[in-house]
Amino acid sequence: MLHEVGASNGAPGASLARRSVVEGLGTAFLLAAVVGSGIMAVRLSGGNTALALLANSLATGAGLAALILAFGAFSGAHMNPAVTLSEAILRGRPWREVPPYVSAQVLGAVAGVAMAHAMFGEPLFSLSVRSRTGLPQIFSEAVATFGLLAVIFFSARRDVAPVAMAVGAYISAAYWFTSSTSFANPAVTLARSLTDTFTGIRPADVPGFLAGQAVGTSAFVLLARWLSGRKNDDPHP
Amino acid sequence: MLHEVGASNGAPGASLARRSVVEGLGTAFLLAAVVGSGIMAVRLSGGNTALALLANSLATGAGLAALILAFGAFSGAHMNPAVTLSEAILRGRPWREVPPYVSAQVLGAVAGVAMAHAMFGEPLFSLSVRSRTGLPQIFSEAVATFGLLAVIFFSARRDVAPVAMAVGAYISAAYWFTSSTSFANPAVTLARSLTDTFTGIRPADVPGFLAGQAVGTSAFVLLARWLSGRKNDDPHP
Amino acid sequence: MLHEVGASNGAPGASLARRSVVEGLGTAFLLAAVVGSGIMAVRLSGGNTALALLANSLATGAGLAALILAFGAFSGAHMNPAVTLSEAILRGRPWREVPPYVSAQVLGAVAGVAMAHAMFGEPLFSLSVRSRTGLPQIFSEAVATFGLLAVIFFSARRDVAPVAMAVGAYISAAYWFTSSTSFANPAVTLARSLTDTFTGIRPADVPGFLAGQAVGTSAFVLLARWLSGRKNDDPHP
Amino acid sequence: MLHEVGASNGAPGASLARRSVVEGLGTAFLLAAVVGSGIMAVRLSGGNTALALLANSLATGAGLAALILAFGAFSGAHMNPAVTLSEAILRGRPWREVPPYVSAQVLGAVAGVAMAHAMFGEPLFSLSVRSRTGLPQIFSEAVATFGLLAVIFFSARRDVAPVAMAVGAYISAAYWFTSSTSFANPAVTLARSLTDTFTGIRPADVPGFLAGQAVGTSAFVLLARWLSGRKNDDPHP
Repeated sequence: MLHEVGASNGAPGASLARRSVVEGLGTAFLLAAVVGSGIMAVRLSGGNTALALLANSLATGAGLAALILAFGAFSGAHMNPAVTLSEAILRGRPWREVPPYVSAQVLGAVAGVAMAHAMFGEPLFSLSVRSRTGLPQIFSEAVATFGLLAVIFFSARRDVAPVAMAVGAYISAAYWFTSSTSFANPAVTLARSLTDTFTGIRPADVPGFLAGQAVGTSAFVLLARWLSGRKNDDPHP
Repeated sequence: MLHEVGASNGAPGASLARRSVVEGLGTAFLLAAVVGSGIMAVRLSGGNTALALLANSLATGAGLAALILAFGAFSGAHMNPAVTLSEAILRGRPWREVPPYVSAQVLGAVAGVAMAHAMFGEPLFSLSVRSRTGLPQIFSEAVATFGLLAVIFFSARRDVAPVAMAVGAYISAAYWFTSSTSFANPAVTLARSLTDTFTGIRPADVPGFLAGQAVGTSAFVLLARWLSGRKNDDPHP
Repeated sequence: MLHEVGASNGAPGASLARRSVVEGLGTAFLLAAVVGSGIMAVRLSGGNTALALLANSLATGAGLAALILAFGAFSGAHMNPAVTLSEAILRGRPWREVPPYVSAQVLGAVAGVAMAHAMFGEPLFSLSVRSRTGLPQIFSEAVATFGLLAVIFFSARRDVAPVAMAVGAYISAAYWFTSSTSFANPAVTLARSLTDTFTGIRPADVPGFLAGQAVGTSAFVLLARWLSGRKNDDPHP
Repeated sequence: MLHEVGASNGAPGASLARRSVVEGLGTAFLLAAVVGSGIMAVRLSGGNTALALLANSLATGAGLAALILAFGAFSGAHMNPAVTLSEAILRGRPWREVPPYVSAQVLGAVAGVAMAHAMFGEPLFSLSVRSRTGLPQIFSEAVATFGLLAVIFFSARRDVAPVAMAVGAYISAAYWFTSSTSFANPAVTLARSLTDTFTGIRPADVPGFLAGQAVGTSAFVLLARWLSGRKNDDPHP
């Protein structure tokens, strides 16, 4: 769906190079929103973690919805390798588009962490020492990713607005209903290892999160195929 | 309306079995959102119940809106036996669909509690000892259910998006304006007796809540028929 | 606009009597949301007034948006005499409809206060002793009412959904940006004198609030006419 | 887009003079919302700055969305010289419209500060002594303005509703993810030097903020042209 919005766009502005740049830009702003709002929230909340997470989760969800609305028409606004991969598997997005999209997402995410740090006068990068480990958190990532893909792929309509709002609302909620605070995105996970602030993740814990996200993505692909009763096709009945 | 969205869907993906599975899946995520965000909120809020309920109510409403947008096109996304029953009475949904829908909702709700517990490293089930009793709370359930059905059935339009947002907004609000925090859903009520956390309900108090919900549903059905000036028909004028 | 939605509705369900009942029902739920969420917020927030007002303002705005979506198609969902009056002046709503609408709104509002009290185990009515007085608060009511009418009348479109969301968002905001917490509604003002809780207003202070609302309504009517360059007609250019 | 909504409006109500008045009125309400909710938040939050900023950011975002929905059809609801300027550069809005729009925005912003102060019983104007300085905050303003323009110009559609919600969501988020709390608006910046309250800015720090906003606007104009592959034309592919 997001795919279709982008794909219906044969103008020069929608060349693969330009779409990849937009993916990178969107993902950079996403990380700036996640990491930046986490820094501000901790600075102001004086140790009240519930209040810090409330601000962080609302800012992330609202920012994400706005970014999807802004960039959806250019590139589909995946900003997430799990989404790009699922589009290739389920909707026939050309596989040759996956590497540039995913590269742009990862590079954009890393740049977004630096943007957030620069906005708050921190060193551009710093390795996180925040432990995020254990089976419950890895299971949380599987659940969060599965749910995110369901929201993105099943709430598809001609207009991007309801999808954008659904994704923003889902992520704000999933910050709270998972013990991992719902990264649900491999590019976000990698980049957040480079910030030693509220939203960071210890590099050693990244593989577990990625594994959980892979399980969630696989489970969603199986569900989507079963629901559509077909293979390699649009999951919408 | 939600019904129509689903019913207009004669593809294999919309078979009764598949729609029931989607109902179960949606209700599981709903309970994961309710129970999981309650656990997270209590863990972080350090005894500040207002802050815990704020996070819990926002996460529930936002998650619910996203789930309706995601699953509405497949099954109608009732996720609530009171909604399924009202559809059968007011809109001619076939009665033979009610048992599989309601079963899927109850099983999904129970599974969702286990999902939440697993995500937070808790035992899969634990009986609640949280007292929720007294006439004011039972009356609250009647009011909350009546209002929820009015929002669902009267805000019906061709597109599911406004309904999803209205239902999410309503539930976030009703957490605060009822003394029962607005369960308004028999499947949710049963399942929440199986969690000894913030959002639990003592099994002994379940019948009172179900009675309140039954009163609210009956009152709404009478109103809808009176407003439509007909019987056994679509309540929209 | 809301008017047109209702007026295009010539079915028996849209008779003046039924529409008035729906106005009363909607206004009752609005007051239940305002007063009920105020009671819950104060009970849980342990003296933290900012947190109490945050919950109260979000619950009111979200509930209001849901109610407009639910009841807009039946009666226009004014739930506010200032809106009904402005419709008669600016859009030719028949003057004979004003008395039943306004009566239903006031009666519904009073019933809603009783509903909220019953849900929280309080006496059905209690005179407020909360002082809300002084020129800044009266000026606040003028500003709040002017802005509310601008949002309702100018954001009119064929679909009720954007209007509902705009009104809910506006009221949540206006709780904070006015010193009166933005009653902006004569029926709400009268009814809130009957609750000795967080959202109450001392009966002696009601006339000042009504005066401010009258000034705001008059100023908006003048603006709408000037913008339309006509008199007694739809203000939309 | 917002431009087109207004421009498609050839009725007398859309004369340049009337549109400028509406711009001024909208900007006045925007400043009333920003400054007023900041005053209320500080008064109630008892030194909890995170809670104060949460209320301030939610009220501003919600109010802004409502104002765009209300006034968008009349004037485009820029309420921001950076938006008006970008429209002239990128979409061919006549340059002769820029001075009256920008004048109205600045005058409206100043009047809005006085409105807020009057609603809270403060002197109509007071010079801010709040320091907002340093490269991180100036860089924040560049990022915030760039992102705001991307949200406004790229999320354009026939209907104003998604744009309004995207802008409101973006600003609520950007309050948190920038160290400057995202003024992103020269008229707002000038006017906020006239309030010695939570949302004020020391006059001496205004030029730095304006410089950051100019950098962000320039960068966005370059991006939009590159994405459209044309010059002086609609950036939408």
